[in-house]
Amino acid sequence: MKDYDAVPLVKLFEHFERLPGIGRKTAQRLAYSILEMDEKVVKDFAECMINVKKSIHYCKLCCNFTDRDICPICSDPERDTSKICIVEDPKDVKAFERAKEYNALYHVIHGVISPLNGIGPDQLHLKELVDRLSSGKIKEVILATNPTVEGEATSLYISKLLKPMGVKVSRIAYGIPLGAVLEYTDGETLRRAINDRIEM
Amino acid sequence: MKDYDAVPLVKLFEHFERLPGIGRKTAQRLAYSILEMDEKVVKDFAECMINVKKSIHYCKLCCNFTDRDICPICSDPERDTSKICIVEDPKDVKAFERAKEYNALYHVIHGVISPLNGIGPDQLHLKELVDRLSSGKIKEVILATNPTVEGEATSLYISKLLKPMGVKVSRIAYGIPLGAVLEYTDGETLRRAINDRIEM
Repeated sequence: MKDYDAVPLVKLFEHFERLPGIGRKTAQRLAYSILEMDEKVVKDFAECMINVKKSIHYCKLCCNFTDRDICPICSDPERDTSKICIVEDPKDVKAFERAKEYNALYHVIHGVISPLNGIGPDQLHLKELVDRLSSGKIKEVILATNPTVEGEATSLYISKLLKPMGVKVSRIAYGIPLGAVLEYTDGETLRRAINDRIEM
Repeated sequence: MKDYDAVPLVKLFEHFERLPGIGRKTAQRLAYSILEMDEKVVKDFAECMINVKKSIHYCKLCCNFTDRDICPICSDPERDTSKICIVEDPKDVKAFERAKEYNALYHVIHGVISPLNGIGPDQLHLKELVDRLSSGKIKEVILATNPTVEGEATSLYISKLLKPMGVKVSRIAYGIPLGAVLEYTDGETLRRAINDRIEM
């Protein structure tokens, strides 16, 4: 098959294809949709991309993405400042915020310990976490890494790191998700659910 | 839920969400992935978007997207110039080219007749098609619109428009797709398949 596509269009296909979860056909569909957009909108989209990259950085306290020094969550006077919830990724903060239950602070470590990928504890944002705890205001750290091998190993590491500092360390509950059917729940989840049972 | 997101990031969420097939959560995931990219790559991506919009336009003959006056398919001396395949969309040209069977010309009409959406024949690129036929070199026009109500109505319209010009008008075959199971094929497709049967 000869390649009849114009070079700028092929370059745009490739850029879209590099985004997570976007395959070749979707990338082409997205690139074509750019061609059908208003020129002003495309310009604004492109500038927005560059602008985000320039203006967004890590919050000095929690390492979540923000365009200020201290992010709006860390500087919100209405939030409980005695607890920190540790998450792997800024998207996890959004997930908790959507759930509207937790009203204290977060700390984003940006990844998990993964020796196979060459990621050790030093590459995670743990130093910033230890600094936050040294003030003594934090009473509890809640570990909310993903229930994967790496996520759990990371939680274990953080737990061992923080316990000597005299702070309460907990982790979110693993178990049967709401709306699930026991019959179709995987064995590992059932094992967790039965072992982590709670007295009623 | 308070909105804690930085304004530039929210704007980028919205831009991604405007793309076809991208919902809110995917848009956020894509925007976050931009944040994690190298600044140079993001700049190139953004410039590429603007550049595509500036340099890509319709081919003067077939109305497919190209960065030249006449697109590479129309100007390829190795292609059969006696046939034109009519498609709704540039993505359909790509689909036929992937199939590696058709080696003649295309004409992209950019849409279908759809009175409900206010799209009549005048909004489609049919004038350019009639101009191409007036040279007398084209012997056959193959209609390849989608098998939808609008697609078929559009094909019927084009067929009636072109027949007086003395050109052979055909349409691609509708029927059971290869690999499908008859038992699960919808009634409309089965009706088509039985009516359009071919003598062996």
